[in-house]
Amino acid sequence: MTAVAAPASAGFASLDALVRPRSVAVIGASDEPARIGGRPIAYMKERGFAGELWPVNPKRQTVQGLPAFASVEALPAAPDVAIIAVPAEHAIATLDSLGRKGCRAVIVFSAGFAEMDEAGAAAQERLTAVARSHGIRLLGPNCLGVFNDSIRFYGTFTASFEKGWPIPGRIGVVSQSGAYGTHVFSAALDRGLGMQVCITTGNEAEVALGDALGWMAQAPEVDVICAYAEGIRESERFIAALELARRNRKPIVMMKVGRSQLGGAAAKSHTASIAGDDTVTQAVLDEFGVVRARTTEEMLDIAYVAAKRIYPARNTLGVLTVSGGAGVLISDAAEQVGLEMPPMPEAAQERLRGLVPFCAPRNPVDCTAQVTNNLPLIGQFAESVATDGGYTSILSFWSQTAAGRSVGPSLRQQMQAVRAAHPDRLWVMSMLAPDKVRDYEADGWVCFEDPSRAVNAIAAMGHYGAAFAAAGETRPAVPLPQVTLPETTPSEAAAKALLATAGVPAVPEAACPEAEAAVAAAERFGYPVVLKILSPDILHKSEIGGVLLDVGDAGAVRQGFATLLERARQHAPTARIEGVLVAKQIKGAVEMALGMFRDPVFGPVAMVGLGGIFIEVLKDVSFRRCPFDTAEAERMIRSLKGFPLLDGARGRPKADLPALAKALSALSAFAAAAGPRLAGIDVNPMLVLPAGEGCYAADAVIELEGGSH
Amino acid sequence: MTAVAAPASAGFASLDALVRPRSVAVIGASDEPARIGGRPIAYMKERGFAGELWPVNPKRQTVQGLPAFASVEALPAAPDVAIIAVPAEHAIATLDSLGRKGCRAVIVFSAGFAEMDEAGAAAQERLTAVARSHGIRLLGPNCLGVFNDSIRFYGTFTASFEKGWPIPGRIGVVSQSGAYGTHVFSAALDRGLGMQVCITTGNEAEVALGDALGWMAQAPEVDVICAYAEGIRESERFIAALELARRNRKPIVMMKVGRSQLGGAAAKSHTASIAGDDTVTQAVLDEFGVVRARTTEEMLDIAYVAAKRIYPARNTLGVLTVSGGAGVLISDAAEQVGLEMPPMPEAAQERLRGLVPFCAPRNPVDCTAQVTNNLPLIGQFAESVATDGGYTSILSFWSQTAAGRSVGPSLRQQMQAVRAAHPDRLWVMSMLAPDKVRDYEADGWVCFEDPSRAVNAIAAMGHYGAAFAAAGETRPAVPLPQVTLPETTPSEAAAKALLATAGVPAVPEAACPEAEAAVAAAERFGYPVVLKILSPDILHKSEIGGVLLDVGDAGAVRQGFATLLERARQHAPTARIEGVLVAKQIKGAVEMALGMFRDPVFGPVAMVGLGGIFIEVLKDVSFRRCPFDTAEAERMIRSLKGFPLLDGARGRPKADLPALAKALSALSAFAAAAGPRLAGIDVNPMLVLPAGEGCYAADAVIELEGGSH
Repeated sequence: MTAVAAPASAGFASLDALVRPRSVAVIGASDEPARIGGRPIAYMKERGFAGELWPVNPKRQTVQGLPAFASVEALPAAPDVAIIAVPAEHAIATLDSLGRKGCRAVIVFSAGFAEMDEAGAAAQERLTAVARSHGIRLLGPNCLGVFNDSIRFYGTFTASFEKGWPIPGRIGVVSQSGAYGTHVFSAALDRGLGMQVCITTGNEAEVALGDALGWMAQAPEVDVICAYAEGIRESERFIAALELARRNRKPIVMMKVGRSQLGGAAAKSHTASIAGDDTVTQAVLDEFGVVRARTTEEMLDIAYVAAKRIYPARNTLGVLTVSGGAGVLISDAAEQVGLEMPPMPEAAQERLRGLVPFCAPRNPVDCTAQVTNNLPLIGQFAESVATDGGYTSILSFWSQTAAGRSVGPSLRQQMQAVRAAHPDRLWVMSMLAPDKVRDYEADGWVCFEDPSRAVNAIAAMGHYGAAFAAAGETRPAVPLPQVTLPETTPSEAAAKALLATAGVPAVPEAACPEAEAAVAAAERFGYPVVLKILSPDILHKSEIGGVLLDVGDAGAVRQGFATLLERARQHAPTARIEGVLVAKQIKGAVEMALGMFRDPVFGPVAMVGLGGIFIEVLKDVSFRRCPFDTAEAERMIRSLKGFPLLDGARGRPKADLPALAKALSALSAFAAAAGPRLAGIDVNPMLVLPAGEGCYAADAVIELEGGSH
Repeated sequence: MTAVAAPASAGFASLDALVRPRSVAVIGASDEPARIGGRPIAYMKERGFAGELWPVNPKRQTVQGLPAFASVEALPAAPDVAIIAVPAEHAIATLDSLGRKGCRAVIVFSAGFAEMDEAGAAAQERLTAVARSHGIRLLGPNCLGVFNDSIRFYGTFTASFEKGWPIPGRIGVVSQSGAYGTHVFSAALDRGLGMQVCITTGNEAEVALGDALGWMAQAPEVDVICAYAEGIRESERFIAALELARRNRKPIVMMKVGRSQLGGAAAKSHTASIAGDDTVTQAVLDEFGVVRARTTEEMLDIAYVAAKRIYPARNTLGVLTVSGGAGVLISDAAEQVGLEMPPMPEAAQERLRGLVPFCAPRNPVDCTAQVTNNLPLIGQFAESVATDGGYTSILSFWSQTAAGRSVGPSLRQQMQAVRAAHPDRLWVMSMLAPDKVRDYEADGWVCFEDPSRAVNAIAAMGHYGAAFAAAGETRPAVPLPQVTLPETTPSEAAAKALLATAGVPAVPEAACPEAEAAVAAAERFGYPVVLKILSPDILHKSEIGGVLLDVGDAGAVRQGFATLLERARQHAPTARIEGVLVAKQIKGAVEMALGMFRDPVFGPVAMVGLGGIFIEVLKDVSFRRCPFDTAEAERMIRSLKGFPLLDGARGRPKADLPALAKALSALSAFAAAAGPRLAGIDVNPMLVLPAGEGCYAADAVIELEGGSH
């Protein structure tokens, strides 16, 4: 991975006026609190926004009891932010007035732009141009706006507050869809989660998802970020935002929908057709430790736990359970998400058996229902799991026991004491006691009814921890080669030669008119070699015995050269003989595929996967933005389901992983250096020999933009 | 699949006395309502069990106000069921007394049997023997018992009723783990789900999971069955129960934990080592349409929807949504679980666009927030999705709109009217309105906060529907061949020959001393053939040109025969020449693997997967109990992720699927007929040629029990 310069958080702070304004003008302000132009004012009045609030409405003296202004020009000063709630056809002129007034942040509610038709798209371009000409940060159009409850700013017309106002908390939400953003807010509210800041980006004429993410990444109001995207339209600020959030240890949990849609337009190369745009997004999210949620419920589970701000870099799970069955279920769930559950130390196991003879003290630690007959055992078991087990995360499963009249209060008191003694751990409670959840949460617990959901969220904290730890590592920059692309699409041989220069080796072969040249080539490639009769007139070489395998030394090359010429003379006396082709013999290789294509948003992206037909059918591939170093290349290779094929599965020799990683990294550097004329590369198969013997491209295609074939 | 005789439901009804007794004796009855021997009595008294309740306690005149009996012998009659709540060491004698008294159903709470140690296991065997000698159906030992709230029978000492009594409903739960069974009950209660019957099987000395499932499969108290298993110990009644439940259209949703554990002990053959015991269980569940839940939450989601008893045999999903983003999210989730979402008819789409110009009427049908400004549109959109779309399942997503003061009541009324007009559909509501859920449920809806969970549960109803429909099909019985196994483990050649007789063809080859014999063999196999010089003295045949490929007709065979003999004479004048080996030439084949092993519980199980190293690394395999017909074999093959390899992926010819299915079915019939001496079969690779050209085993191993090598 290239060493990325520290992202300029100052750049993201330029959204301050949009999300944390001291003065707000509403253009198209309505006296009706339920209308689009009325809601922001009604909300801010009810909640007590402390800044200036200036309704603009030429037809009224007051709006909802506030003095109204006849025009933008009539405002007492440039507002920090202005909300445009007028019909689309007036939006551009309004924006221009605001710019001239000196306003530099505008939220456009108005719909009827790019989401509608061609004319709307053109209008949106004009809107953007006006914003840019004034240096305005513009949110929308066609967006539901922003709210920042920490300062009681409500620049939104969502109706979702009918249910209730935000409650204190440090989870922020960024959403391209207004409906989905407020859905998440509303679902969070139902769960008692504090989500006080919400930015919806709508059509993203100017402010895009990356800007909003970046603002939250540096904003003190927000610890945890929920994000919803239908498509990433802009990469530079998006990547800088992910980088900054990782650096500032703020977890992002992202819902990216449209997994099924393929990036058909981008499918110039074969590699691209395998990718689809979602795969590239996934690769970028993986790169920065963003956790992808599959459901809204999962998004909120993860945000809920993340708000505890405990992100173990090397996560281990200890489980204390009152039910053996639940213990097995939890172990299954942990294995599923790759969360490690090391056993308790032997001595501790022995001691726990002393407390409850039929307990299962390994991990999961099943204390059995026996503890409900001898309540002080609860604390002793919990303390042992924390102290002796030393786990970073501890899940305790109590089912309905926690709700019991007799056991419940003592359970809560004991578990709380142990938790308080180990505040560095991630403590999670799984219980069936809906009316006790708020009490436990007040104690500082996170609580789940379903232990599998708890395990999933705990695993996510480990992903964040690992990503945050990796953000601190300094990595050497990947040196980029000088690349001169040919004028037209190169032949297979030329493509292989070009890639070989860049560090992606091809199977070495040489046409040798004489025996000594063949010996020299063989010595250069290393034995054994393959000898093939070289003649334009002999098509089926093997049928006349024209191919010799396993040629093992110089003597054998000389003898083989003579044998082939003799056979050719005998079986094809009239054929023109040009000599012998000497090629390095590749045996016992694993067939891989490397590739690269240009993503319209994220630029050059490299791929590695199992070669041959399996890449298409099983889709076992890994993608990463170019360029990246060999360590990252190795991580990509190790992430393949088929990795055991390279790693000595079934008694095979281990393949030359370092050579493959080096070639993949070299390919990524080549792609990064080549510039936009390079449309794609397919190296398939890439033959990987046993450890120490290298890897070689047997076929390669380079595609150029506008290149002819 | 073999045509299975109708399972005898009468057999399962033999558990009636255990679950639906009219008289209950409690041996070891306690006057303390909180003690194990006191709880059943306290529960039945409080709930008003209508039958006889006889405490047995030699030390008391009364127990919890009921007259007590001094001994089993002193009971006025044989109780329908007796509960043994005495220490383990007295359990066997008590059971014997009960048997002599004429009692034929006993629940043993007592622990200290096979779950403890060797001595406990021996005691359990004695317990079982005593039960069998009296013809007693015995539940436990070490179980939490039974409850059947529909008759207020509480043969359990669970403490989970502290939270509340069961509420009316027709979901039953069967669990090997008492703690987990009551956890599910308690979680269901928290959700307002009616789960009135629960059977926990504990150590399963006599009554096993299959008996309990089978009882529910025929019991009028139960419509939907939740099951929890750690391991299936008995197959015959288990399978009969699944068969009966399917026939009676009762969905089973099963949590089977221990997915990670491999059946090491059973790993006699290579196929078995790939399987692990969980894979076989999964194959059996697949066979009968049992849906596997990964989490308790998922189990209850599915049971909740299943209780509506709408199981579409060919399930299609129509989605009505107020948010486009949620629509995409729902489409992703549906694709993930293979639930089809056909588009609305064009004319209907046109009409909906007439109602709301910016709506997206395809499916998901996004009616947009516009409908909240024109409420009657809600019903018009819903009616169109139901009538014009004709979907079997309809998910409507309203987010927090349903909770709104203004929109909520009208939404509920309109949606209810449309739902009532189409009662055959599976209607599911996704909304953020926790305090409205009970109202909607009272209307007849099922409600989910998270639409992804709704989609998952809807998909399960389709799985049930398809399985129930398939149960009605009559299938031809699979004819079993006569199999005579050799005395000792056969050689590769003998194994291939034996399997070939049974219908699993091997690559045909013949050693031919003369040219005319070679021609005859080639004509038998079909062209092209491969000719190889046959000599014990020539090891590297290809180096002397001793292998001829693509030999295409009789003339070419004769000429090739002569060529090979001539080359041998020339290059190896002293070699003994035995003639020429003629083999069918297998080119362009897909390599598959077939296999079979003997599962300790389910008997012979056959496997098919991609051949070569991929079977181990990618675990892309399918298992099924033997025997099964070619239709089932084809379903197994089609279920492989790598199936496109056989189906013409990337412009390859389609492989001979019928031949492969026939060979797989033949293997299953062979395995079923061979008896227990057959331990395993591995056919790897099985070479599958293009359509019409057949498939051929290139290697085969047959393992025998106790067979020498």
